[in-house]
Amino acid sequence: MKEETKKITRDPFPASRKRYVSGKIHNLRVAMREIEIGSGVARSENGSSTRRIVVYDTSGPYSDPDVAINLKKGLPKLRLSWITGRGDVEECEKSRSVAGVNSPARLRARSGACVTQMHYARRGIITPEMEYVAIRENQMLEEQREEFSGLANGHRGEFDGPFSPEFKITPEFVRDQIARGQAIIPANINHPESEPMIIGRNFLVKINANIGNSAISSSIEEEVEKAVWACRWGADTIMDLSTGDNIHETREWIIRNSPVPVGTVPIYQALEKVGGVPEELSWEIYRDTLIEQAEQGVDYFTIHAGVLLEYIPLTAKRVTGIVSRGGSIMAKWCLAHHKQNFLYTRFEEICEIMRAYDVAFSLGDGLRPGSIADANDQAQFAELETLGELTDIAWKHDVQVMIEGPGHIPMHMIKENMDKEMEICKGAPFYTLGPLTTDIAPGYDHITSAIGAAMIGWFGCAMLCYVTPKEHLGLPDRDDVREGVIAYKIAAHAADLAKGHPAAQLRDNLLSQARFEFRWNDQFNLALDPERARSYHDETLPAEGAKLAHFCSMCGPKFCSMKITQELREFAAKQGLSAEEARESGLQRKAEEFKSAGGELYLSAVSGGK
Amino acid sequence: MKEETKKITRDPFPASRKRYVSGKIHNLRVAMREIEIGSGVARSENGSSTRRIVVYDTSGPYSDPDVAINLKKGLPKLRLSWITGRGDVEECEKSRSVAGVNSPARLRARSGACVTQMHYARRGIITPEMEYVAIRENQMLEEQREEFSGLANGHRGEFDGPFSPEFKITPEFVRDQIARGQAIIPANINHPESEPMIIGRNFLVKINANIGNSAISSSIEEEVEKAVWACRWGADTIMDLSTGDNIHETREWIIRNSPVPVGTVPIYQALEKVGGVPEELSWEIYRDTLIEQAEQGVDYFTIHAGVLLEYIPLTAKRVTGIVSRGGSIMAKWCLAHHKQNFLYTRFEEICEIMRAYDVAFSLGDGLRPGSIADANDQAQFAELETLGELTDIAWKHDVQVMIEGPGHIPMHMIKENMDKEMEICKGAPFYTLGPLTTDIAPGYDHITSAIGAAMIGWFGCAMLCYVTPKEHLGLPDRDDVREGVIAYKIAAHAADLAKGHPAAQLRDNLLSQARFEFRWNDQFNLALDPERARSYHDETLPAEGAKLAHFCSMCGPKFCSMKITQELREFAAKQGLSAEEARESGLQRKAEEFKSAGGELYLSAVSGGK
Repeated sequence: MKEETKKITRDPFPASRKRYVSGKIHNLRVAMREIEIGSGVARSENGSSTRRIVVYDTSGPYSDPDVAINLKKGLPKLRLSWITGRGDVEECEKSRSVAGVNSPARLRARSGACVTQMHYARRGIITPEMEYVAIRENQMLEEQREEFSGLANGHRGEFDGPFSPEFKITPEFVRDQIARGQAIIPANINHPESEPMIIGRNFLVKINANIGNSAISSSIEEEVEKAVWACRWGADTIMDLSTGDNIHETREWIIRNSPVPVGTVPIYQALEKVGGVPEELSWEIYRDTLIEQAEQGVDYFTIHAGVLLEYIPLTAKRVTGIVSRGGSIMAKWCLAHHKQNFLYTRFEEICEIMRAYDVAFSLGDGLRPGSIADANDQAQFAELETLGELTDIAWKHDVQVMIEGPGHIPMHMIKENMDKEMEICKGAPFYTLGPLTTDIAPGYDHITSAIGAAMIGWFGCAMLCYVTPKEHLGLPDRDDVREGVIAYKIAAHAADLAKGHPAAQLRDNLLSQARFEFRWNDQFNLALDPERARSYHDETLPAEGAKLAHFCSMCGPKFCSMKITQELREFAAKQGLSAEEARESGLQRKAEEFKSAGGELYLSAVSGGK
Repeated sequence: MKEETKKITRDPFPASRKRYVSGKIHNLRVAMREIEIGSGVARSENGSSTRRIVVYDTSGPYSDPDVAINLKKGLPKLRLSWITGRGDVEECEKSRSVAGVNSPARLRARSGACVTQMHYARRGIITPEMEYVAIRENQMLEEQREEFSGLANGHRGEFDGPFSPEFKITPEFVRDQIARGQAIIPANINHPESEPMIIGRNFLVKINANIGNSAISSSIEEEVEKAVWACRWGADTIMDLSTGDNIHETREWIIRNSPVPVGTVPIYQALEKVGGVPEELSWEIYRDTLIEQAEQGVDYFTIHAGVLLEYIPLTAKRVTGIVSRGGSIMAKWCLAHHKQNFLYTRFEEICEIMRAYDVAFSLGDGLRPGSIADANDQAQFAELETLGELTDIAWKHDVQVMIEGPGHIPMHMIKENMDKEMEICKGAPFYTLGPLTTDIAPGYDHITSAIGAAMIGWFGCAMLCYVTPKEHLGLPDRDDVREGVIAYKIAAHAADLAKGHPAAQLRDNLLSQARFEFRWNDQFNLALDPERARSYHDETLPAEGAKLAHFCSMCGPKFCSMKITQELREFAAKQGLSAEEARESGLQRKAEEFKSAGGELYLSAVSGGK
C-alpha cells in the first residue's frame, strides 16, 4: 500500500483538520475542513483565544490522516448502505472487471424501479444525499451561528429559499429544489464513494475540472493523482475526458478513488470503438457504451443531443465553426448519413438508461461559440431551444438534468445566455465553460474566462467548468490544473458573494480581520491557496519573526496604512471619539489630549498603497 | 552607452515592427506596432498573401531598433517643439539638477498663462497632443478601413461620439471631450518625452502599473527597466510610488526615460522630508514638493484632498480601517492637529500650481474600502461627494481631473460606484484599483481584481490600476509586474469589447481566424503575450513542423473539432449546402454525394473540448 500512495497528495491544509458533522434525519457524517485561527498569536489587548471555522471541503478522505488510502481497494463506500437500503436495486448480470482494482458489485434499478434523486424528491422523500448536501452547504456549524452571525452577511433575498437573513439551508429545501428540477445531486448508485454535492443556482456555485485526455500515456496512479489534486484545490466535480487506449480501465481507477462526482462524454469512447470514424457510429454502440459507463459509476454524461441536422448549416459562416468535439463528431455523423442525430431520436431510450442508475444529463452545447465573433448566434440559440425540449422529456422520466453553456462571450452578451437558459430550460442548472471574455490572450485564458465565469455565476449559473492557462495551446499539467482550479474557486466565490449566498462572506471577513491585525499565519491559512500566499510573503521576509510584524515588504514599516489605522483606532476608542463630535470644532481638545498621550496613531499601506 | 542599455529590454515583439503614422493637422508621427500575419504559411486553397495590422503600442522607442537609447540623455523629446511653439512657457529660475542625467530646461507657464490641454480645448484649439491621441485611438490605418470593416464589430451607440458604425475617432471629438472634462491627456510640459495618451470613458480603457516603492535599494538602471518592462507589456501610465532615499533622483531617471505619463503621490516625498512623522507635515513643505515634482515632469498627482477631518470617525467601525497610505497619513495629520486637511483648504492654491505645468489631478480616494466588508460604506461615499466638489474647482481653473476609486467591492456593488462617480463628479474619468471581488485569495489578487476591473471598465471606468499576484504579501518583482499588466490588459480589452469600442474586436477576430486555420505563429504573434503563448504550445510540441499541424496536444489529431469543422465546411461549400436545404429531407442526396466525394469533413476540439 505504501508504494501505491506515494504519489498521492495527502497532507492536510495548514492549521486544518477534518471535521465530521452528524446528520439529524439520517445516520451520516458530513466531511468538512476545520481551520483554526488565532493560534500562536500573542494579542495583548483583548486576549481573545483561538477560533475554529469550517469551510466547504472537496478534498475527500485524502486530507484525513486517519483514513487509510489504498488505490486498489478504492475509497470507503460512504453511500453504499443508503443505496442498498432503499430496496430498489439489484446486481447487474454481467459486468466488465478491471485488473488490479476491486470493483464493487455493479448495481441497477430493479425492473420497473427508478432510482434517481429526482424520483425520490418528487415522492417527498428526503434522502441521506439530500440531508448531506443541506448540512454541507451551510458552511457553518449550528453552534457557531451566533458567534459568527455579524460576519456572514447574506445580503439579499434573490434566492428561492428561506436563507437570508437566517442563512439556513434545510434538507426540505434541497428536496424541493431537486423535485422541481432546479438543482441536481449527481450520484450514480455505482459510485458510492462520492460525497454528495448539489448543483443549482440557489446553492454555492460549483466548479468542474477536466482531467484525462492524455495522448501520452501516463500511469494509472498519475491519473488518480490528477483527480485527487484537482479536488484538493477545490474541484466539485471532475470530468474524465480521456481518449485513446485503456479508457475503461483508467476510468475505473478514477471513479473508485474519486470523492467527487465524475462526468464523461460517452461519445469519445464510442468513437474509439469504431476506430475513430464518426460515420461508423451507431445507436447500438453508443447505447452499450452508456450502459458500460453507468455500471462503472459515472455520475453525469455530456450528451450532445441538441446538435440537429438542420442546425449544422447555421455554423457555416462562423469564424470558428463547431468547437465542441462531441458536437463536431455528431455533425459529421448527421451530414454523412443525412439523418437526424440519433442522440435526439433515441432520447427517451437514453432516459431509460439514466434513470436505472441515476446518471444525470449534462446536455451538451455542441454548437457553442468558439470565438467572440460567434457569440450568441443563431446556431447556438437554436440548439438551446432543443435542449429545453429535451429537459422536459428527461423530467418526465424523473431524470436529473443540467444544461451546458458557452464558451466565448463578450461581457455585454453574457446575461442573455443566462436569461435564455433560465426561460427555455425552466431553471434547470446551467453549467458553462468560462465564458472567455476575449480571444486575444492565449496563455492566460484562465483569466479571460474567470471574468466571464464570475459574472455568469452571479447571474445564476450553477457550475463553472474551469479553463487552464494552457487552453488552446496544449495539455495542462499539474501546475496548470492548480492555476485553473484556483481561478475558478475565485470566480465561484465572487459569485456567491454577489448572490448573497448565506455565510459566503464569513471567510472574507475573517481573512480581512486577520490582515488588519497582522495575523499573517491566519491570513495564509484562510486563503484559497495557503501555500502560495505564504511563499509569496516569505520571498522577501522569510524569517518566522516577520509573521508577527506589523507590515510587509510591499510598503515597509513606515508606510503601512493598516498599522497607522490600528493606532488611530485605539486612540479614537480611548478618547470616545464619535462622528458627531468630530464634526464639531471641539475636536481641538481631543487633538491635544492625543498628542500629550503619546501621539502614535494610524498609517499603513495595503491595496496598492497610494 | 552599451553598458547603460544592457539591462533594458529592447527586442521588438515577434513579427512586429514600429510603424509611424503622420498627422494631418500637425507635423507629427504617431507610433504604432504593426504585426504581420500569414507569413511563412503555405495555404494551398486560397493562396492569400500576408496582411498587416496595427495595434495600440505603449512600448515607446525601446521597441524600435532604429532609435538609439541612452539613459543619460533620455528619450527623444517628442513634444518639446509643440510645447515651446505655443509661446506660453518660460524657463524656471532655479531647478534641482540630478547627477548623471541630462535634464532638460525646466519650464513653467508664463505669468498669467495657463498651459493645460483643457485650457486649449476650451478655446477651440486642437493641439498636436489631441491629434496624436485621435490617430492612436483608432487602432487602424485609414487605408485599412475597408479591408477590415467586417471584422471590427463596433457594436452599439453608447458612446458620446460619432464612432459606431464608422468607428472613427476625430481630433475634434478629442478636443470636445477634453473641454468638457470627460477625458484627460496627462501631459506635463516638463515631460516632453511622453507619447500623448487619453483617459476617458469614450476611449480605449487604459491601465496603470505601479513601480518603485522599493525598500531594498536597486540601481537606477533597474528602476528604469521596471518602467520600460511595464510599458512593454502594455502599461498606459506608470506611477512611481518610491519611498526612501534618492526619491528625487530615481524619479528624474524614470521620467527622462518614460514613454508614458508618470504619476506620483507627492505626500510620500513630503513625508520623507519631515522624517516620516505625519504630524510634522505642513502646507509649505507639501507645496514645495508639488513644485519640485511638477518641474521634473510628473504628469499627474494623486492628492488625497477628500479625506476630511469629519469623515475619519466614519472609518471607526470598519473591518480594515483606512488602507490608503496617503489617506492614513492625512488622517493622522488631521486628528493630531484637529484641523481640516490642508490639501482641501489649500485646494485653489494647488490648482494654481497644476495649471502652470499641466499636471492633472488624480483625486485620491483615501477612504476607499480595504475589504469586502467595508465596500460602499458611508466613509467612502462621503469622500466621493467632496471629490465632486473639488472637481468643479479644478475645472474652474482649467485643470484636468480624474477620480480615484476602490479597492475591494463585491460584484453586485460595483456598478453603484461607477454610477455615483459619474453623477457626483460629472463624468470626470474614473480610475480604480481593481476592484477586488473577494478577499480570500492572497497570491491571486491579479485575478480577484481583474474580474472587478473588467466589469467597472465596461460600466465606464477610464483607467484601471493594476494589482499584481503579490498584493497584500510583498513587493512585486519583474514576473509579478508582467502577470499584473497582462491580467489588466485582458480586463481593459474585455471592457472595450463590451463597450463596443470601434475596432476593438478586430484583433480577437484575426486571432480566432488564425486559430481556426491552424496558423499557430499568427496566433502567438497576435496574442497579448506572444512569448507565453508560444512557450506553452512548445512544451509538448516543440518541433517547428508542429506550427503547421492541424491540432495541438490538448486534443490530439483525431479529436480536433476545428480540423473537423474545416473539412465539413469545405464539403458544405462544395455542395452548395444552405440552411434552407438542410431543413428539407432532400439532404439525403447530399449525404450520398458527400460520401462518394471522399467523406472527410469536420471534427475538432478547442475550449475544453467536450
